[in-house]
Amino acid sequence: MDKRVYLAGPEVFLAMSREIGARKRAICARYGLVGVYPGDEEHAPDPALPLTVQGIAISRAMERTMRSCAAIIVNLTPFRGPSADVGSAYEMGFMRALGRPIFAYSNDARPYFERVAAFCGDTMRQRPTGEYEDPDGMAIEPFALHDNLMLAGAVTDGHFVTDARAPAERYSALRAFELCVGRAAAELGADVSG
Amino acid sequence: MDKRVYLAGPEVFLAMSREIGARKRAICARYGLVGVYPGDEEHAPDPALPLTVQGIAISRAMERTMRSCAAIIVNLTPFRGPSADVGSAYEMGFMRALGRPIFAYSNDARPYFERVAAFCGDTMRQRPTGEYEDPDGMAIEPFALHDNLMLAGAVTDGHFVTDARAPAERYSALRAFELCVGRAAAELGADVSG
Repeated sequence: MDKRVYLAGPEVFLAMSREIGARKRAICARYGLVGVYPGDEEHAPDPALPLTVQGIAISRAMERTMRSCAAIIVNLTPFRGPSADVGSAYEMGFMRALGRPIFAYSNDARPYFERVAAFCGDTMRQRPTGEYEDPDGMAIEPFALHDNLMLAGAVTDGHFVTDARAPAERYSALRAFELCVGRAAAELGADVSG
Repeated sequence: MDKRVYLAGPEVFLAMSREIGARKRAICARYGLVGVYPGDEEHAPDPALPLTVQGIAISRAMERTMRSCAAIIVNLTPFRGPSADVGSAYEMGFMRALGRPIFAYSNDARPYFERVAAFCGDTMRQRPTGEYEDPDGMAIEPFALHDNLMLAGAVTDGHFVTDARAPAERYSALRAFELCVGRAAAELGADVSG
């Protein structure tokens, strides 16, 4: 498992997911790493099974796969709102608890506060105590981090890369991903001549 | 640590967070458990430190706290979009990798597909292959689960409780939480006479 790297991110939901997976694996190979893209190894469940059973079977397979990987590179580009995809966040936490290095990138370079403010528009409010909150009364974290502080705290030694991309490219551009791969290869001692 | 339970959820962002934490801890105590609410033990960082340093310090404290807990009860009520709070999702993954039991609840009883469809409104589209996608071209998971399949798969033995609440109550109502506490107490063998 020493060179297997789990590739988490919401691009698995794109119609072109398999093509992006192939591109990501090819980049990893150039750096001496084995990229493991969700779906590559998921042992697609029997389509005759009830949908809920299929969903849980994929979850089990992905957790086994994560345990077999030495590190994770996670795409934190915002997904259906101002934060990262919850599945990717879950996978970060999983790998963090196992002590595996975490490399992260986002194709949206804005800090979290700015993205939440844009999401809220003119519904953002200020409390009498000074903090800002969304229309549900939820404080907007002021820490000048890229997302929720638990996600920011999980990324190994600041191995977080951002690349400001236009909406059309935000789930397919791989420049920031490749920078993460280079850092992961250095950290894992990958043999690029291999 | 055998009766300490980590209480994850986005209600930490409410102005009344400490009051909700106190209510949650009181419910846990009635069932013989020690509820650990984020913030109770976070050793608030020095406010003179840079904000990013404060944020990371809280993350470190919360991870230490999770390692000291025997289980997690997580609030998956949707937060700033159709999915759960990413910080709570991260914490679920963390506890899952450690093998700790996970109990979850949501004060929004709708399945994930229905919430995403409501979030997308008339921007939801159908692919030629039949799947539905959001306006970013991201497939909407069809598994009839409550959220992303990784989150659904993590919940121990179907210990997932929903309670359909009005928007004004969705982050403060604790009926579903209390049902989770009861299940956690049974699983952890808590001594309610204590």
